Amino acid sequence: MNFTKMQGLGNDFIVLADFDALPADVSEQAVRLCDRHFGIGADGLVFLLPSSQADYMMRIINSDGTEPEQCGNAIRCAATYLYESGLVDASVREITIETIGAGVQSVQLELDNGRVDRVRVDMGEPVLQGLSIPTTLDADSVVDQPISTGGQEFLFTAVSMGNPHCVIFVDDAVSLDVGVLGPPLEKHPFFPNKINVEFATAHRRDFADMRVWERGAGPTLACGTGACATLVAGVLTGRMDRRAIVALAGGELMIEWSEADNRVYMTGPARQVFTGTLPQTNFILK
Amino acid sequence: MNFTKMQGLGNDFIVLADFDALPADVSEQAVRLCDRHFGIGADGLVFLLPSSQADYMMRIINSDGTEPEQCGNAIRCAATYLYESGLVDASVREITIETIGAGVQSVQLELDNGRVDRVRVDMGEPVLQGLSIPTTLDADSVVDQPISTGGQEFLFTAVSMGNPHCVIFVDDAVSLDVGVLGPPLEKHPFFPNKINVEFATAHRRDFADMRVWERGAGPTLACGTGACATLVAGVLTGRMDRRAIVALAGGELMIEWSEADNRVYMTGPARQVFTGTLPQTNFILK
Repeated sequence: MNFTKMQGLGNDFIVLADFDALPADVSEQAVRLCDRHFGIGADGLVFLLPSSQADYMMRIINSDGTEPEQCGNAIRCAATYLYESGLVDASVREITIETIGAGVQSVQLELDNGRVDRVRVDMGEPVLQGLSIPTTLDADSVVDQPISTGGQEFLFTAVSMGNPHCVIFVDDAVSLDVGVLGPPLEKHPFFPNKINVEFATAHRRDFADMRVWERGAGPTLACGTGACATLVAGVLTGRMDRRAIVALAGGELMIEWSEADNRVYMTGPARQVFTGTLPQTNFILK
Repeated sequence: MNFTKMQGLGNDFIVLADFDALPADVSEQAVRLCDRHFGIGADGLVFLLPSSQADYMMRIINSDGTEPEQCGNAIRCAATYLYESGLVDASVREITIETIGAGVQSVQLELDNGRVDRVRVDMGEPVLQGLSIPTTLDADSVVDQPISTGGQEFLFTAVSMGNPHCVIFVDDAVSLDVGVLGPPLEKHPFFPNKINVEFATAHRRDFADMRVWERGAGPTLACGTGACATLVAGVLTGRMDRRAIVALAGGELMIEWSEADNRVYMTGPARQVFTGTLPQTNFILK
């Protein structure tokens, strides 16, 4: 079985393009293939499947065997792979990818020397209404609301980008320990479905550092929807412009919250790391 | 650049056989290639180089860029690769590999259906003299000596297998937290060069569970020299026979301390996980 290993801001995926449908035992195989000592090692599998509505359909299976609604890093990897492998017409700069959580997404490629430099993804409209995010706060928006944990008091802004985020602006997001502050905030009574927690520092109106505690996953190198939520929270609190760089542990994303269509656009890198072949004796995925 | 990913009990290596010598910038490249999110991901690089004294020379570069004296899991991977790739004559069942720390090692292959099932490695004679291991105890052997840490009292047996080990037999090695007990024992004043710490439970005279805290590395899935030291300590304390299975977190090793030649032989698995190719644009190792 042939595969390509891709990464976007250090969020890494095994891309598989030779399948017509998800294998029946895909959860079990994902756990094995993503194991970083006994398998190939990755955060997840990305299947590129036939689609009747788009160029391709993308299904992601995480390293724990579950299927997430969406992943901004994975869709950039998928688009880069489809272009560089020649699976989509090399003359186009726009690829459509059908996803489980966000329908058909239109993805723009920025090229450099014939290779994909960055990928621009439409991440949809942010949801700001308190109960819809969901939070327990019945308000049109939840901006700079007080929240306390472990004797510390913060102000948070809540945004859903398909998944819920709690963004907290602090003086120095990079040196703060998200491993200590993240878990109690993730499970705070304000958030009925739990929440992703972002700590951010807006150094300029067009540049912020951000560190994330992902719901159910802990600290990660990069969270695309978290970067989008951070920009939206930066605009809502008057700290940031509608177009800015959000710098994560794994690298930088350009985020734009369009005034024209109210949608959030994320632009960032995705890279092929290597191509590989599994002997049939080790894994019988196909 | 082509490579093969191998693992022995979950200790995983990028095997490179197309080089005549170590590249000048090998430490820096090892850190990049072994990175589990941005690179291939591994515990280390294994270079198979020409040798004037043996079939091949093996040099290991760890994921932190340092070069260890030896590694029992790496040599099993190297031997399996050399046989299965055809780099050594397929009619032989014995391969000689020159190493930095242990000179020329003779390695036996156990085959199953034309593939390598297990590899038997001569790990040399154990060093038992207290000062030579080294410990601060001037005695011919250090067997079931009291040692205390954090208010708990243990009995330890010290063995060097080229590197120093402190073996402690307990009632239930598997459920004990080596992350708590390991660090203070590693740095105990008895051990001038610090020490690897093994907790073992001899369920039968021919079977023991073992969990390891590796000096400088922390808890690992498997430590070949630690398994050897555990068997030697089991014999010295009257708990175990000279030939037994030592079960580690990553799998099982058969260890034999030969009465005939006083040497310790380790037999265990090594497997190819996948083959891969790096694009020249990403890594310029060669």
